[in-house]
Amino acid sequence: MSTNLAPDTELAERLFDTLRERSFDGVGITRTAYGEGEAMAHALLAEEGDKLGLERRVDPIGNQYLTLPGADRSRPAIVLGSHLDSVAQGGNFDGAAGVLAGLAAVAGLVKAGYTPAQDVTVMCIRAEEAGEWFPTSYPGSRGSLGMLTAADLAVKRRDSGRSLAEHMREEGFDPSFAEAGKKVLGPHNVAGFLELHIEQGPTLEGEGKPLGIVTGIPGSRRFRAARVVGEYNHSGATARKYRKDAVAAAAELAYRLDEYWCELDAQGRRMVVTFCEMATTADAGFTKISGEVKFSLDIRAVNMENCDLMVARLHQLIAEIEARRGVTFELGTESGSTPSIMDAAMQAGLAKAADDLKVGHISMASGAGHDTAAFVQAGVPGAMLFVRNQNGSHNPHEAMRAEDFALACQVITRWLQDVTQ
Amino acid sequence: MSTNLAPDTELAERLFDTLRERSFDGVGITRTAYGEGEAMAHALLAEEGDKLGLERRVDPIGNQYLTLPGADRSRPAIVLGSHLDSVAQGGNFDGAAGVLAGLAAVAGLVKAGYTPAQDVTVMCIRAEEAGEWFPTSYPGSRGSLGMLTAADLAVKRRDSGRSLAEHMREEGFDPSFAEAGKKVLGPHNVAGFLELHIEQGPTLEGEGKPLGIVTGIPGSRRFRAARVVGEYNHSGATARKYRKDAVAAAAELAYRLDEYWCELDAQGRRMVVTFCEMATTADAGFTKISGEVKFSLDIRAVNMENCDLMVARLHQLIAEIEARRGVTFELGTESGSTPSIMDAAMQAGLAKAADDLKVGHISMASGAGHDTAAFVQAGVPGAMLFVRNQNGSHNPHEAMRAEDFALACQVITRWLQDVTQ
Repeated sequence: MSTNLAPDTELAERLFDTLRERSFDGVGITRTAYGEGEAMAHALLAEEGDKLGLERRVDPIGNQYLTLPGADRSRPAIVLGSHLDSVAQGGNFDGAAGVLAGLAAVAGLVKAGYTPAQDVTVMCIRAEEAGEWFPTSYPGSRGSLGMLTAADLAVKRRDSGRSLAEHMREEGFDPSFAEAGKKVLGPHNVAGFLELHIEQGPTLEGEGKPLGIVTGIPGSRRFRAARVVGEYNHSGATARKYRKDAVAAAAELAYRLDEYWCELDAQGRRMVVTFCEMATTADAGFTKISGEVKFSLDIRAVNMENCDLMVARLHQLIAEIEARRGVTFELGTESGSTPSIMDAAMQAGLAKAADDLKVGHISMASGAGHDTAAFVQAGVPGAMLFVRNQNGSHNPHEAMRAEDFALACQVITRWLQDVTQ
Repeated sequence: MSTNLAPDTELAERLFDTLRERSFDGVGITRTAYGEGEAMAHALLAEEGDKLGLERRVDPIGNQYLTLPGADRSRPAIVLGSHLDSVAQGGNFDGAAGVLAGLAAVAGLVKAGYTPAQDVTVMCIRAEEAGEWFPTSYPGSRGSLGMLTAADLAVKRRDSGRSLAEHMREEGFDPSFAEAGKKVLGPHNVAGFLELHIEQGPTLEGEGKPLGIVTGIPGSRRFRAARVVGEYNHSGATARKYRKDAVAAAAELAYRLDEYWCELDAQGRRMVVTFCEMATTADAGFTKISGEVKFSLDIRAVNMENCDLMVARLHQLIAEIEARRGVTFELGTESGSTPSIMDAAMQAGLAKAADDLKVGHISMASGAGHDTAAFVQAGVPGAMLFVRNQNGSHNPHEAMRAEDFALACQVITRWLQDVTQ
C-alpha cells in the first residue's frame, strides 16, 4: 500500500474562502437552491475540476459530477459528495464541506498519480435545504436516483413561490427527465456514497473527539399540531377537584414522557424526544386556569422500535391524564420518516482508517436528515463522517476547525486507498 | 323571637329584571364603574329606598346608603351590600345580587314593622370590577373606609384613559374627601359588613349545596412574568446530555409543584396553584429544542403559611432543575396580597341561621377578592355568603337560581333578626 497519498486540504481551504467571499450576504452565507449562490458554487467546482483534469458531467437535474477515472470503468464507482446550497444567512460549511472534502481527497490522488481500481466521483448535489427552499426531502439526490415524483416537482420554493420544475428549467435543466422516472445513479453504478458533514449538535465537542462515524439517520414519528383542551375557569375560585387545567395536563405529559426517555436511555435505547413548542393560547391570561395548550412533539431514533415504544407510552399517558384531569388530547395528524441505516462495511472501513491514523472518533446517530438517506433508500451503500463543530449549523457561526477538517480528509483518503486498490 | 320576618324576594326579582332591561348591551350586561350603567343602578336603588321610607345618603365617593333606623341610633350599624358595577358584557348577578339581597331583607323588616336594635343599612358600592375598569382594588369601599391613596385616585379607567378622580368629579362626587384621608365608615360605626355574592366557581353546584359561608378571601403570592431560559438547539442532532430544554424544565416545575399541591391537599392544607400561562416564544419552532418558556404562576390560600410552603418548594425545585437541566429560571417581580379572614362570630351566626331554616351550606374559601376584604382590612368584622351558580361569573351566562337566592335572603333575614334584637 502506498503511504504517500494525502488530501489536498490547502485546496479545500482556499475554496472555502472563495465560497465565503462570493456568498456572504452581509450577515451570513446564502446559497439559494437553484439560484445564484448555488450556481456560483457549482461553477467554482467546475473550474477546479477542470484544473485537476477530472471528467465533468452535469445531470438533467443539475447535479454535477467530477470523476477521476478508475482502472476498470465498468466497476461501480465510489461517490463522495454533499450539497452546495445553504440556508439563507447560514454558514459556509453545511453542505460545502462534504463536496470540498471529496475534492481534496481526489486532488490528493491526482497529485500522487494514483489510479483507483474504479471511478471515484465528487458529487455536487442540488437543493438539500428543504427547510429553507423547497419543502420536500433531498430533491437533488433523489432526482439523480430516479426517485422524484410529480408532487416533488410541483413544490414551490418558499421565497419565489415558483415550482421546483420551473426553477430547474430556469437554470437550464430538464425536469422531464425526472418526470419520466429516469435516473443517473443507482446500486448498479455506485458502490458506495460517502458524505462528510459538520455535526449539527454538540456531541463531538462534548466528547472531545474530532470525528463521528454515523450509524444511521433516524426515522421519526412527529405530531406537529397537537393540543390538549381543558376548561377556562377562575384560578382563584375553582377548587382542585373542579379543574380541567390544560397546562397541568400538558406539563404532566411532557414530564412523564421525559422520565420514560430517561428509563429507555438507561437501557441503552438511543433516541431523542422533544416538545419543540408548547403554549397556552391568546385566550389564556392571569387569574385564569388555561383551557387549551398547543404543542408539537418530535420523536426520532435510528431504531424505529424506540420511536414506537415512545408513542405507545404517549398514548398510555394521554389516556391516564385525560381520565384524571378531565381534559382531552388531540394529537392531530402524525407524520414521520423511516430510518436510513449506514452501511456496516463502510462504517468499519472508516473506523479502521481513523484508527490507522490515530484519529479520535465515536459512532453516533445523525440527528438530522441528509442526502445520504436518499442513497440508502435507493439501495446504495451509504456512510457519513461528521466533523466536530462548535456552534450548530444553519447559522453564520458554524465553527469547524481547519485541523479537524484536515483529519477527516486524511481519513477519507486512507479509506479511499483501502477500497480502490 | 318573632317568626314572621321574611325577605321581600319578589322585590329583588323585580329589580333584577329592571336592572337587566336597563343594562343589557346586546350580548350581556354592562354597568360601567362611575359610568352610565352604574349610575342607572344607583338611581333605581334610590327610588326603591325612598318607596320603602329608608333614610338615603350618598358619600363623597359616590357610595349610596339606604338605612332602616334602629332603636339606638348610636350603636354601630349592620351593613349589607355589594357593588353595582359589572364587567362589560358580563352577567346581571355579580355585585347586584348582594345589594338586592340586602334590600329584600330590609324590605322584609319594614313590611313587618320591625325596628332593629341598631341601624341596618343597605350599601351600594362603587367600582369593584378592577379587572375591567379601574386597575386598583375596591376603590368604592376603600374610599368609604378612608383607605384610598393619591395613587389610587390617579389610576386610569381602561376604556376612557381618564383617572378615577376625574371620573368621580364628572359624576358629581368629591375625590378631595379621599385625598384628605376622611372616611364615612369604620369599626366605630359598623358592627358588621355582610356581602352576598354568587359563587364564581363550581364548588356549590358540585357539592349539591345552595349556600357557602366564606371562611376568608385568600392571600396570594404571584409571579406574573416568569421565564426559564435554556438554549435553542437542533431537536434531532442534540443528544439528551447536551440539551438545555426550556419546555422540559418548565414542564417539570409545573408537574412537580402540582404533585406537592396534592400532598399538601391530602394534609388538609387548602390552596389553589395555577400556571395560568405557559408558552414557548416566537423563536421556537418544529425541529428546535426550545430556548425559552414564559409562564405566570398564581398561588392563593386563606392561610398564608400554605402559600409560603408552596413558594419555598418552588425555589427548591428551581434550584434542582437548574442544576440538572442547565437552564436558568427568572421569576421576575413577585406581587401578592394578604388574606382577609371572615369574622368567626358572623360565620357562626350565618351557619346557625341556615341550620334553623334547614338550608344546606358548606364552609369555603372565596377564590377571588371582594369589597368585604376592604372592610376586614379596615378592622370591621366581615362575612360573605356565596350562592350556588352554574356558569361562573363575568359572563352573560351567570346562572343563579331564584330559589337559591331566596334561601340566601331568608338566611340573611334570620341572621338579622338574631343580631338586631
